[in-house]
Amino acid sequence: MKSTDNRFGILNSEWMKAVDNINDSLMLGAIEHLSKSGFRWIDVPIMTKITGACENVDTLYSVEHFGKTAYLAQTGQLYLEAKIPSHEKVWTVIHSSRAEGSVDDRHLNQFHLIEFEHKGGFEMLLDIIEETIKAMMRKVLKNNRDDLEILGRSIDELESYLRPFNSITYTEAVEHLKGTALEIEWGDDLTHAHELFLVEKYGNGPLFITHYPKKIKFFNMRVNDDDPGVVNSADLIMPYSGESVGSAERENDYGRLVKRLKESQMFRILSKRGVTMQDFEEYLNLVKKDPILHSGCGIGFTRVSQSVMGFEDIRMATSYPLNSSVLY
Amino acid sequence: MKSTDNRFGILNSEWMKAVDNINDSLMLGAIEHLSKSGFRWIDVPIMTKITGACENVDTLYSVEHFGKTAYLAQTGQLYLEAKIPSHEKVWTVIHSSRAEGSVDDRHLNQFHLIEFEHKGGFEMLLDIIEETIKAMMRKVLKNNRDDLEILGRSIDELESYLRPFNSITYTEAVEHLKGTALEIEWGDDLTHAHELFLVEKYGNGPLFITHYPKKIKFFNMRVNDDDPGVVNSADLIMPYSGESVGSAERENDYGRLVKRLKESQMFRILSKRGVTMQDFEEYLNLVKKDPILHSGCGIGFTRVSQSVMGFEDIRMATSYPLNSSVLY
Repeated sequence: MKSTDNRFGILNSEWMKAVDNINDSLMLGAIEHLSKSGFRWIDVPIMTKITGACENVDTLYSVEHFGKTAYLAQTGQLYLEAKIPSHEKVWTVIHSSRAEGSVDDRHLNQFHLIEFEHKGGFEMLLDIIEETIKAMMRKVLKNNRDDLEILGRSIDELESYLRPFNSITYTEAVEHLKGTALEIEWGDDLTHAHELFLVEKYGNGPLFITHYPKKIKFFNMRVNDDDPGVVNSADLIMPYSGESVGSAERENDYGRLVKRLKESQMFRILSKRGVTMQDFEEYLNLVKKDPILHSGCGIGFTRVSQSVMGFEDIRMATSYPLNSSVLY
Repeated sequence: MKSTDNRFGILNSEWMKAVDNINDSLMLGAIEHLSKSGFRWIDVPIMTKITGACENVDTLYSVEHFGKTAYLAQTGQLYLEAKIPSHEKVWTVIHSSRAEGSVDDRHLNQFHLIEFEHKGGFEMLLDIIEETIKAMMRKVLKNNRDDLEILGRSIDELESYLRPFNSITYTEAVEHLKGTALEIEWGDDLTHAHELFLVEKYGNGPLFITHYPKKIKFFNMRVNDDDPGVVNSADLIMPYSGESVGSAERENDYGRLVKRLKESQMFRILSKRGVTMQDFEEYLNLVKKDPILHSGCGIGFTRVSQSVMGFEDIRMATSYPLNSSVLY
């Protein structure tokens, strides 16, 4: 079920049917929860200028669009944020594209990204993420007990994920890793091994890791008022799959935002490819015009699926897992 | 509101907010209706082999995927059909990509396509399409009366679309056009002008046109048992937007399906580009293994929006309308 060699042969197996059923509940659970909570669905583009990139600009797919270079969107975030003045709470779901060369148990080249943005700050953000993920899981626990059994999934373990999510800061995470084989320097990014170590240490449920170093995160994540070295970000780390949600308060001070963009590693890489500040002008102008404090996230759908199903390999959690070795 | 020159300037206008609100109801209305009717959401790929093409192979966007040529899917149909043996009723929604060069009031380069497939034949198909479109419109009539007013939309006219949809055959359509300035030969495709003429003639509501000539339709549309010149297809033509849904029974006889594919104009064009029968092998094998009679459709979301909102121009019905002159 990990292999991508014979996907059409297993598409209609009892096992894959159970996977589909659970994914249906997870997707509907998210949509119903966001809709019921007053979020407006917004139609965002997925073939875009460079403003469809997340910080991983080395994994952009490009497409020729009538003489212009377009990119397959990695995120609809900026296009969604642009709608905050009208609606205050907005969501969308896109196929996010990432040209990751590695064929492994964690990365797909396309996956659904459920994204939302809302007026308000960090605490509200964490609450909405937790409630959305729980709404997805509750729907599975309600509809898919037989399917979970077919997959050999421990229902007790899945139910235990419904406890209040623990939360630690990045700095606390680095402290915890000290003296272990996984020790890192403050400022280094966390790898999958670190994430799973921390998840286990904190009760083996979904775990927020907050306030990452500014320099390793997206340019519009808002810098913390008390500690200018970190941003008001939170990744949700889930058992099995690790990082499953990325989120942050968004910088709403125009001057600071422009400065952050110019100094970001992303922009330095892009500059070498001819990208200029003008490519971000329309987004920046919206922030200048309506500097509303808002926050948002992207939920990596298949990472959540993988965790809910308790799989070691993300390729088991979807029918057509795309990576660099395959095309369906 | 038709222009794409200053989209970021009008993104948060009162007018565009009303458009967003109505689109939210239309999307949620479709999802809730299909889900409630027992359809399973399926995660289909949107960067694919040639099997993501519809009959318009000249409008494919191509992408380099690790040494292979991939295409941005125009439809997820074949990948959705592949799941019929497990679920009997399946649906998905994708961004469909069409590299249409023309900048006009009818075509977008990307739009949401809501697709479903179900076990069963033609009559059932038409019923489900009608009920789904009506569920979308009812949600708008329930939630968005103020928004419709902002857009200057006649609510009476929109309500009149809820009457039973009329249905005529393609051959009847050709008869009706005889002697008018729009007269065509049997076998020619209908244009937008023909569609709007017929919609008006039949009570100015959504109108099914069924049983199109085999030679102008997708290779897997099932040939009619009584008239081998036509297929069991139905396009739903809507006021303002014209063709908004394409649908058909799918050929489930392996021998006939292979023959149709080989003889199709699509395959003739593709053959010149190096595509062979082997590129369709996995799909064909699924039909051979499980020859279940099934039917399905693709709902062009923004065409439905345009009709519901009563706009002459599709670019007015969405925030980021993509065509060959623009990129956001």
